[in-house]
Amino acid sequence: MIFGEIGGYHRFVSRPYSPDVNDRISDHLADLVAALPDGRVLTDPDVVDSYARDRTFVAPGKALAVILARSRDDVVTTLRWASAQRVPVVPRGAGTGLAGGATSVDGCLVLSLAGMTRIRELSPDDEIAVVEPGVITADLDRAAREHGLMYAPDPSSHEISTIGGNLATNAGGLRCVKYGVTRDSALGLEVVLADGRVLDTGRRTMKGVTGYDLTGLFVGSEGTLGVITAATVRLHRVPGQVATVAAEFTSLRDAASAVSAIIAAGCRPSLLELMDRTTLEAIDSWKNIGLEPATRAMLIAQAEGPAQEIAALCSAASFVAEASTSEEAAELIGVRRLAYDAKERLGQCLVEDVCVPRSALPDMISAIEDAASRHGVTIATVAHAGDGNLHPVFIFERGLAEPPAEVWAAADEVFRTALDLGGTLTGEHGVGVLKRRWLGLEIGPVATEIHQGIKQVFDPLNILNPGKAI
Amino acid sequence: MIFGEIGGYHRFVSRPYSPDVNDRISDHLADLVAALPDGRVLTDPDVVDSYARDRTFVAPGKALAVILARSRDDVVTTLRWASAQRVPVVPRGAGTGLAGGATSVDGCLVLSLAGMTRIRELSPDDEIAVVEPGVITADLDRAAREHGLMYAPDPSSHEISTIGGNLATNAGGLRCVKYGVTRDSALGLEVVLADGRVLDTGRRTMKGVTGYDLTGLFVGSEGTLGVITAATVRLHRVPGQVATVAAEFTSLRDAASAVSAIIAAGCRPSLLELMDRTTLEAIDSWKNIGLEPATRAMLIAQAEGPAQEIAALCSAASFVAEASTSEEAAELIGVRRLAYDAKERLGQCLVEDVCVPRSALPDMISAIEDAASRHGVTIATVAHAGDGNLHPVFIFERGLAEPPAEVWAAADEVFRTALDLGGTLTGEHGVGVLKRRWLGLEIGPVATEIHQGIKQVFDPLNILNPGKAI
Repeated sequence: MIFGEIGGYHRFVSRPYSPDVNDRISDHLADLVAALPDGRVLTDPDVVDSYARDRTFVAPGKALAVILARSRDDVVTTLRWASAQRVPVVPRGAGTGLAGGATSVDGCLVLSLAGMTRIRELSPDDEIAVVEPGVITADLDRAAREHGLMYAPDPSSHEISTIGGNLATNAGGLRCVKYGVTRDSALGLEVVLADGRVLDTGRRTMKGVTGYDLTGLFVGSEGTLGVITAATVRLHRVPGQVATVAAEFTSLRDAASAVSAIIAAGCRPSLLELMDRTTLEAIDSWKNIGLEPATRAMLIAQAEGPAQEIAALCSAASFVAEASTSEEAAELIGVRRLAYDAKERLGQCLVEDVCVPRSALPDMISAIEDAASRHGVTIATVAHAGDGNLHPVFIFERGLAEPPAEVWAAADEVFRTALDLGGTLTGEHGVGVLKRRWLGLEIGPVATEIHQGIKQVFDPLNILNPGKAI
Repeated sequence: MIFGEIGGYHRFVSRPYSPDVNDRISDHLADLVAALPDGRVLTDPDVVDSYARDRTFVAPGKALAVILARSRDDVVTTLRWASAQRVPVVPRGAGTGLAGGATSVDGCLVLSLAGMTRIRELSPDDEIAVVEPGVITADLDRAAREHGLMYAPDPSSHEISTIGGNLATNAGGLRCVKYGVTRDSALGLEVVLADGRVLDTGRRTMKGVTGYDLTGLFVGSEGTLGVITAATVRLHRVPGQVATVAAEFTSLRDAASAVSAIIAAGCRPSLLELMDRTTLEAIDSWKNIGLEPATRAMLIAQAEGPAQEIAALCSAASFVAEASTSEEAAELIGVRRLAYDAKERLGQCLVEDVCVPRSALPDMISAIEDAASRHGVTIATVAHAGDGNLHPVFIFERGLAEPPAEVWAAADEVFRTALDLGGTLTGEHGVGVLKRRWLGLEIGPVATEIHQGIKQVFDPLNILNPGKAI
């Protein structure tokens, strides 16, 4: 088994620098401090440590310093210095990642883009915005809504995550069943390359086929190809009347079947979320949602068109609630948005992210249940069911440095089943550090070589987020 | 002016082979003939010549032979041989391209994928199909419609173009205002690399972020990075009732303003097409559509929801027709689909393809009219107006080897204006040979270098469609 061969996560962390080299680098750091405006460089070890992790348990390396970039020029200056000194750079947004992609590596600069928060432009006529990477996802959405528009991608973390992080991981969310993932909203990028050169990709038009799709290549590349300093993104018109329905089921498979029925009926939901009993219990014990003893799963659906139509397609449901006001709708969806935090109250979480063809959803759910019982681990699953994207959350004892062997054994089984069912290891969280050991299983040796070739084109010194994603 | 510096198109054509080298290659061609199943290699010069062009006037080079691939293995065998012999390969679908991308180069193998016509799979549950590159676009759409689904991308050539060609150019069409371009429908690809290795990219799931977006990179790369031998594509549910409206205007700017009004009202059209007077006259003189003398533009719109709503937004229209049956709707849209063939009856066509932010549509239209009058050339324009994608068609005398200088002068002006307005040189046709001289203006020197680096990763010997796209 692969997981057995590798051991702790610290093995993945790139440690290219000996203490001697680090001493030399520290001397040169003064040059970077001098080249940047005041207050951009943090070196206090405790402060630097507070930038070392994302939302995973991945053990970080020891960073040299944190750079608080406020402008594209800060990023250019930083990367020029890093290239000259061969210092690795770990770009970082809000640190809400779930795959270890923003975890520090030894001797690195942490390059925080969280301070680049300008919405440079918002054009209602062209339905686009030009934003800096530190803009909070939900803030962009709110700014767009002042013009009857919205920014569609809405990862569960949208109130705390940044556009830059969303772009780096190609984040998804609840609405992507209708509006697509972050890549589908990204039209063009301003990127600083590893050597400090600035590259503009893409366009501000709805279509365009000049040159290769570099925009798409950067989105989801987890900071390994360049540092995004601005993005031109698509906005969408806010839909008119939508119906919101929550349905409870006494069987998880029945709920999965209702998903297929809703899709097959052509309802085109803008949200179609599934939660299992373990997830619902976690929410109930926190917020008391009045969970019925027989309920095994809940489906929350939102679509244009009459609520009754969706409700009727949940024929096997034990209970169906139709929201009659937008406040009620927000409340139903709010239950789903509590899921992640509710689970974190139960213990440490390994949040997984497999995606399978929609027809394989019931089989994938069964496989997760089997893996949980076979290995004696707690798995709470939510799914962006309309996309076939499941988040089985493996919950383990607090205080452990990393998940125990049985969690990895169960996770390994879940990943392999997802691939066997024609699925993928990660629908929207990225590979980061956590999924690298399974990466080869999915993409194979030819793609691995091509990835390395592309990395070499953009980052020949391998200073950008080394040891991540590929 | 750039166009003046370059001269005839034959200068763009790669001619890496001296006659001596060609003799040696011809000797080795027998090895390829032997390695492929019977009947795959055509060498009769007249037959080979018939595969030399696309739908442009670009002067082709002299090909060595045509390979009629029937399977992935045929492609593998061909590319292995071509790599070993350093022979350029020009992949080709139906030859309906409008940018010279499939034009033969001297000493090349033309690799026709038109014979790979299998729909390997069509899954209504997962809303995907796996298709070979020679499948005619409209045939896939028809196959999907048997299951209440559709294949959304519909370039005007959809009855004669192939999926492979659509992928190579990232083709658009009338429906992409709602459903996006070909890239938005491509989930995964089977690609044969220049050296004959097979690479599988992407996935068959709705979402997935494992590794870099190689699928997106191949789509629109015009055969310069690999040869696509199968694609997993998304299908969409056929929408319910749609309203179709045609509105005539006595001013082109009024028509463009109606486009903005329709978008701003949130109608979310699935089709929004604009035709100018010159285009309408060409259609009228062929098919007698009863064109009114005062009509300067026609807008054709299709959307879910009531026709009256769209009609009301065309407040400046001199005449509005609402289709009351699907036959009437097909007739209205049929007028638009006649546009290209109607113009070809008037003379030789240079079909252009700029795309601008939607708000710049009126300015772009004015600039095209100005360029036509300033340079004394006939330009007939249709636009996928909802996307800001315009096709100004420059019509010139039949029999000329290439467009006269005044056509290029007007085209140069149109391209530069599109870029000045924040637009792009090509919305959906590709760069091919025709747009290469303006490419640098749009993507700049850093992107040019990155493109060359990527090309080098996939095709280090530069045998795949040399001299095209980048």
